[in-house]
Amino acid sequence: MGRVANLGPGRPRVEQRRRRGQTPRAEILDAAGELFTTNGYANTSTRVVADAVGIRQASLYHHFAAKDDILDALLAETIAAPLELAERLGKVSAPVPTRLYALARFDVRQLCAARWNLGALYLLPELRTERFAMFRRRRDELREHYERLAAGVLAEVGGAGVAGAEALPFRLVETVINMRSDQGEAPADSERTIPEAALRVLGWPGDLHALHDEASRLLEIA
Amino acid sequence: MGRVANLGPGRPRVEQRRRRGQTPRAEILDAAGELFTTNGYANTSTRVVADAVGIRQASLYHHFAAKDDILDALLAETIAAPLELAERLGKVSAPVPTRLYALARFDVRQLCAARWNLGALYLLPELRTERFAMFRRRRDELREHYERLAAGVLAEVGGAGVAGAEALPFRLVETVINMRSDQGEAPADSERTIPEAALRVLGWPGDLHALHDEASRLLEIA
Repeated sequence: MGRVANLGPGRPRVEQRRRRGQTPRAEILDAAGELFTTNGYANTSTRVVADAVGIRQASLYHHFAAKDDILDALLAETIAAPLELAERLGKVSAPVPTRLYALARFDVRQLCAARWNLGALYLLPELRTERFAMFRRRRDELREHYERLAAGVLAEVGGAGVAGAEALPFRLVETVINMRSDQGEAPADSERTIPEAALRVLGWPGDLHALHDEASRLLEIA
Repeated sequence: MGRVANLGPGRPRVEQRRRRGQTPRAEILDAAGELFTTNGYANTSTRVVADAVGIRQASLYHHFAAKDDILDALLAETIAAPLELAERLGKVSAPVPTRLYALARFDVRQLCAARWNLGALYLLPELRTERFAMFRRRRDELREHYERLAAGVLAEVGGAGVAGAEALPFRLVETVINMRSDQGEAPADSERTIPEAALRVLGWPGDLHALHDEASRLLEIA
């Protein structure tokens, strides 16, 4: 009788909701983000994710057809906002160093603020498969935005930067992922340290405090 | 009769040796390095490693009691040489910027030259368990060597560097792991670009070409 009451289309969840998130989809992503980053992607089944949310596995499949769809959605989250910002920054008339600083600052902030250190999943061998070709392409796009801005700064400073340094701002931003992985969190001042370092490796000689303020204003309007 | 000939203590391998390495142990590490970085650690059983080497699983257990012992040995390899160098550099009288450049250059070179991109394993959640406490401690030691040298450079330049940048040289060196993971290999000039960038984020204003030559001489004697 107790069992029967739990069957049928309107049946309650196995347990009360226990995850953050406004929707079942968001709760699944939150649980998977935790499990993938703490127990590992290969070690985590959709069954375990469903249990962590307090829903049945069949309900999980209503939102995500397979485990790699959950991973793809989590990865997409990590680059969607900086990629959108990079595209908007491409249309404003601010100086190139300001745009690069603003992008790096925004990206560091969101990588640090995310509840789970999802960037740690970038090195999964699974990401090299065809299934994740679209994600890889979008991340490449973000990397190219960084490299175009960095090349612009290098051109402005006329040889004062480290040769070949246009690849480094993107890579410097992603070091907060390693800091979070090793030390639990990135240093509180990373939002300033990392963008400043990005400009300095490019040989940009200007006033970093003034640049910080300009980038803050740019982030308000872009 | 054919089967019987394969039994007993002196029995031949299942197949001919197919891995690089002078010893069975080295062959196991080479196979595991490939499988852990391309198929994933959790997805790779000791059985699969033994098959890749062309030995029986029982023979593998003669060298490594468990899969985590193989991982631990692979990880230890990635830091043993730079850690030894850092200790030797602590005893020479070369200027701090030269020592930091030499360490970063040596470390980038070995991370790039290693047959498998083993640094990609640093972000495995398994590494946060007690089993890998010793590895984490040794890697922390290496990080502290970098940070001490970086703090020395920052002190020399008197506030010209990015505040909080002492953490960045170690992190910059490790970006070659991400470059290898994303692009197959790090740019050929990383051995120069990364140490130069490490010095520039610290605000070191000197001649990078002269520093490169000094660091080369130091690496020959240290």
